[in-house]
Amino acid sequence: MIEPQLAVAPMHRLCKKAGAERVSEAAAKELGKTLEEIGIKIAKVALDYAMYAGRKTIKTEDIEIATRKVMEE
Amino acid sequence: MIEPQLAVAPMHRLCKKAGAERVSEAAAKELGKTLEEIGIKIAKVALDYAMYAGRKTIKTEDIEIATRKVMEE
Repeated sequence: MIEPQLAVAPMHRLCKKAGAERVSEAAAKELGKTLEEIGIKIAKVALDYAMYAGRKTIKTEDIEIATRKVMEE
Repeated sequence: MIEPQLAVAPMHRLCKKAGAERVSEAAAKELGKTLEEIGIKIAKVALDYAMYAGRKTIKTEDIEIATRKVMEE
């Protein structure tokens, strides 16, 4: 079984920040799962960029360009 | 000051899952900030759908359709 990396409580807080009064527990879990998938996708692209630049360490600039690529797709 | 909702440690774990050996602290924070922004965007769209359906509670189906809309843009 895959252990989720993102806790449910912060997902509830994100929804409150978005203006929601109430969020079902299942919906909060779904949001966590979704953000985890997007996060891994961004990190994979960021790693490609880091390696292309001759580094083994992901830096902020790699995350920035990877985010643009993933969100533009 | 805006308090970040997503902790840095899970961001490091997401990057490891993506195959990265090392991630700078600043890059992990950047990934957290990015995912928080994406999460709020998804939650806002989900709330619109919930309200359109006559509900005040965000449900799983709202998160699912909102994710598709946000990621397609």
